[in-house]
Amino acid sequence: MMANRMKRLLIGRPMKSKELEGEKLGRLKALAILSSDALSSVAYGTEQILIALMVAGFAAVWYSIPISIAVLGLLLILILSYRQTIFAYPMGGGAYVVAKNNLGTTTGLLAGGSLLIDYILTVAVSASAGTDAITSAFPSLHDHRVLIATVVILFLTLMNLRGVTESASVLAIPIYLFVVSIFVLIVSGVIRYLTGGAHPDIPELGTAVSNVSLFLLLKAFSSGCSALTGVEAVSNAIPNFKQPAERNAAATLVMMGLILGGMFLGISVLAYWYGITPSHNETVVSQIAASTFGRGFLYYFIQGVTALILFLAANTAYSAFPLLAFMLAKDKYMPHAFMVRGDRLGFSNGILFLAAFSIVLVVLFGGDTENLIPLYAVGVFIPFTLSQLGMMVRWVRLRPKGWGGKLAINTVGMLTTLGITLIFIFTKFSQVWMVFVFLPVVMWLFLRIHRHYVKVADELRIDLAADKPVIKGSTVVVPVAGITRVVSNSIGYAKSLTDNVVAVYVGFDDDSIERMEAKWAEWNPGVRLIVLRSSYRSITRPLLKFIDTVEWKTAETDHITILIPQFVTKHWWQHILHNQTGLLLRTYLFNRKDIVIATVPYHLKH
Amino acid sequence: MMANRMKRLLIGRPMKSKELEGEKLGRLKALAILSSDALSSVAYGTEQILIALMVAGFAAVWYSIPISIAVLGLLLILILSYRQTIFAYPMGGGAYVVAKNNLGTTTGLLAGGSLLIDYILTVAVSASAGTDAITSAFPSLHDHRVLIATVVILFLTLMNLRGVTESASVLAIPIYLFVVSIFVLIVSGVIRYLTGGAHPDIPELGTAVSNVSLFLLLKAFSSGCSALTGVEAVSNAIPNFKQPAERNAAATLVMMGLILGGMFLGISVLAYWYGITPSHNETVVSQIAASTFGRGFLYYFIQGVTALILFLAANTAYSAFPLLAFMLAKDKYMPHAFMVRGDRLGFSNGILFLAAFSIVLVVLFGGDTENLIPLYAVGVFIPFTLSQLGMMVRWVRLRPKGWGGKLAINTVGMLTTLGITLIFIFTKFSQVWMVFVFLPVVMWLFLRIHRHYVKVADELRIDLAADKPVIKGSTVVVPVAGITRVVSNSIGYAKSLTDNVVAVYVGFDDDSIERMEAKWAEWNPGVRLIVLRSSYRSITRPLLKFIDTVEWKTAETDHITILIPQFVTKHWWQHILHNQTGLLLRTYLFNRKDIVIATVPYHLKH
Repeated sequence: MMANRMKRLLIGRPMKSKELEGEKLGRLKALAILSSDALSSVAYGTEQILIALMVAGFAAVWYSIPISIAVLGLLLILILSYRQTIFAYPMGGGAYVVAKNNLGTTTGLLAGGSLLIDYILTVAVSASAGTDAITSAFPSLHDHRVLIATVVILFLTLMNLRGVTESASVLAIPIYLFVVSIFVLIVSGVIRYLTGGAHPDIPELGTAVSNVSLFLLLKAFSSGCSALTGVEAVSNAIPNFKQPAERNAAATLVMMGLILGGMFLGISVLAYWYGITPSHNETVVSQIAASTFGRGFLYYFIQGVTALILFLAANTAYSAFPLLAFMLAKDKYMPHAFMVRGDRLGFSNGILFLAAFSIVLVVLFGGDTENLIPLYAVGVFIPFTLSQLGMMVRWVRLRPKGWGGKLAINTVGMLTTLGITLIFIFTKFSQVWMVFVFLPVVMWLFLRIHRHYVKVADELRIDLAADKPVIKGSTVVVPVAGITRVVSNSIGYAKSLTDNVVAVYVGFDDDSIERMEAKWAEWNPGVRLIVLRSSYRSITRPLLKFIDTVEWKTAETDHITILIPQFVTKHWWQHILHNQTGLLLRTYLFNRKDIVIATVPYHLKH
Repeated sequence: MMANRMKRLLIGRPMKSKELEGEKLGRLKALAILSSDALSSVAYGTEQILIALMVAGFAAVWYSIPISIAVLGLLLILILSYRQTIFAYPMGGGAYVVAKNNLGTTTGLLAGGSLLIDYILTVAVSASAGTDAITSAFPSLHDHRVLIATVVILFLTLMNLRGVTESASVLAIPIYLFVVSIFVLIVSGVIRYLTGGAHPDIPELGTAVSNVSLFLLLKAFSSGCSALTGVEAVSNAIPNFKQPAERNAAATLVMMGLILGGMFLGISVLAYWYGITPSHNETVVSQIAASTFGRGFLYYFIQGVTALILFLAANTAYSAFPLLAFMLAKDKYMPHAFMVRGDRLGFSNGILFLAAFSIVLVVLFGGDTENLIPLYAVGVFIPFTLSQLGMMVRWVRLRPKGWGGKLAINTVGMLTTLGITLIFIFTKFSQVWMVFVFLPVVMWLFLRIHRHYVKVADELRIDLAADKPVIKGSTVVVPVAGITRVVSNSIGYAKSLTDNVVAVYVGFDDDSIERMEAKWAEWNPGVRLIVLRSSYRSITRPLLKFIDTVEWKTAETDHITILIPQFVTKHWWQHILHNQTGLLLRTYLFNRKDIVIATVPYHLKH
């Protein structure tokens, strides 16, 4: 009751299924709730490129400009590819559905599994990066990074248990603020550059740097690709859009691509102009903002909205993960529990699962983004590749009007994303190997769960014509500890069901056994009392043995039921004063015997 | 099953009740298991006196000698008093039993409650002080004090869940080592002093110190009384002794007093001779040992056994707390759960309760002994006083041979301990007020629990002649989600009990409802199907409403039973794939309705 009231307060009143339609998203709201993951990537994309380049020294930073342009090209390819997916799969589902449909179940599960892992990483990375934005502004908080990130995740979890639309309304504003303020930052930065605010010795574009290898450039390029994480979110969530869902989704995707590209290029150029080098204690965006505005109001405002949007990026996963888990559960690859909608129509179990695992990741990595991001990026590019491959197969199979052009777009997309996946494995194996451990484990779990459900379904299926309920006799066992109103109540219930009732008493010494037998004879409730002696002070052990015997004698002819009386107390705290033995008995009996355990309530008046 | 095997591994095989006799303690073992609390107090007793005196400057430290002698006098009084108690109450029980017997229930509960609080503090203080001994030797561990103390408490808990004798065998050796090594330290220290190793400027005994007030001296004296905590343990545990229990217990008490007195005085004198001042990072005993032996093997050995014996002092409470809780539970002042002996014949619930609360204290106080010890000491002196007062009343009431002398001893004891309690309240109110908050709360809980149990016993008592079990009709409700072998099984069971069976299906939309109705008609199991429609996606809500209706119609004439099928899976991990709805239903139904919940198992083959 208490727990129930608490739940209402935190999560809100339950909603009818019909209210689900009202939860659907318009374009702008969808941009807010689905693109925060992609847009927020600009907070760390440029920084990842610079970290990789700095290995070759400050002179190499000019490479960040051509690399950023290459990343933009990749973004264009991805947007075009995913636009095609949206129209081909208006029911949504993204990489899992596309790969399963066109490449078979196993490949689909590979895509689905890596996406699930990836959503967990989205939450961990975004919460950690958002915390970085805060600690850049307030260095004294640096030591509390894990705590801050964890609290943020818990808060998001609560918001999402409340339901989709309400969160969207709350979350839309900071995203618009972020976009506006980053563009203000870029424009101001350009003006400052033009009025002579550049770093004095930045290496000119095209400067020869002796120790820059192709390996290093590929590594920097793949690092920059982390800026593209999150663009798939729109195509996964089409059923969440208002009608016409495909058109709205495609428009949202294009809007997102334009904004993302603009912001990413702007940040990269400013970082280059100001000659910014990555630091452990301050993010690149924080350095740019501090150089442009000084550490005044505008600086803190930008850090604030950057942190906020990164936290909201984590929120993207809260829409995507439970939906994908639902689809996998419907296909019997994940536990049925992920199909249950909560009181507020969200998939509560998916939300809680996501929260738990992402918190574990944040704690394990100590909130360190630098090592989480490559893991995250490789997890994204696997489903990217599989999804494109699936689309290619689809065009060849269905050959709709203009399929040649469509095939070409997806082929380019597939080859690029496959290339980047390989570059990741090649250049950053020490950071990304974990994905290749977890992915097979997840796949194996999917298949084990599926096999179990399929076998159980077979086992439970009955022939409506031939299999009818079988009626047997009934034996009821009533454990008693004395003669009280509760015992009288239980025996009354048992005798109402069958004449075959046995009361069992477990005694520790002769005295108590004799007394009980005499009292029982005096009471004479019309039920035989069987007395067991216990040398260990255990009640459960002799009782279990006795039930074994009963089962051995009568299981063929009778259903065996054991009655366990349970006090229902007036106040919750009184509960701990009773029912300990009943609880113990139930725990021991469950899983062991083929007997029915019936809990007979006794309502205490006091 | 897994949990069971784990439990065996950690706790050992279950023991028969008869083995209880074998668990009884001889004198030497009793000294080891019961006196560690008292003896280990020398590790902080002298230090507490010095901390109080240092407020008046280094010149005041000479007062530690007369104060230590006064504490010794008090020790003598306590030993004599408690010796009388042992012979008067051979069944043991200490302050709770003595006070309850002679001063009435409420006073007995006051003694019992303060003892319970005190045992929790014993564990917290001893674990923290033992950790201090370790961190004095290894200053780098200073920051991990809370963690170390917690791990120690968890380890002791495990040992005690294994049973009394086995712990005694393991624990006896360090106590003997501690006693021997402290006496070696004292003798070596005296030799070093005689050979000219004293501190050059220690204030002579009797030096006038301007700012020493009576208040300060009383405070220092009461601080020193913390060295006497634990002497009551023997009289509480007489039933644990081998026969003749009283004689053995009394002898153990006197042995303990002699050893304690000798060690305490020795440490105090050495501390004075060496001119040692208390420090936050190093204990007084550590400073004495370092001055005597240098930081070599002997120093680390002494720190090691000091830490060990302090941890074993915590162990004293593990014998005493569960025994007292058992007595209070038998008298219906604490939950019955404290009367259940575990598989290894220890009172497992008492042990676990003690562990949990002491860990909370250690964490709350950050492992800081200086603030825990006064709390601890005042908690000891309240039952000391009440116990003496109870003995006085007893002598006056019974007037056995030589009662005058006995009365005199206990009167002196009562007045002294009462005086010290008042000094504590007077000089250290800011540190001890918590006891006076918790004590009334504990008393109130005792009385609430007692009232509840008495009322319930009244409510449950039946007239053997008049109250016989009442036989009624029976209605069985079977919630079904489809037509499967499980449903067939449940309906078979239900029809074996009664003809009054109703199947209930909760549908979310017209489609599924129509399909279910058609299938049911085709199957025709001879049971009526009732279909409920749910607008919220909840299964429990409409089901509860339906059961309300059934209850309203038939509660007078019928017992209502609801069958909940439960899958018993072959592997534990499969359990999470099933039974979610059943669990939900049981949680909702329990506490709400006057209906029997019967769990019908279905053993899955896969």
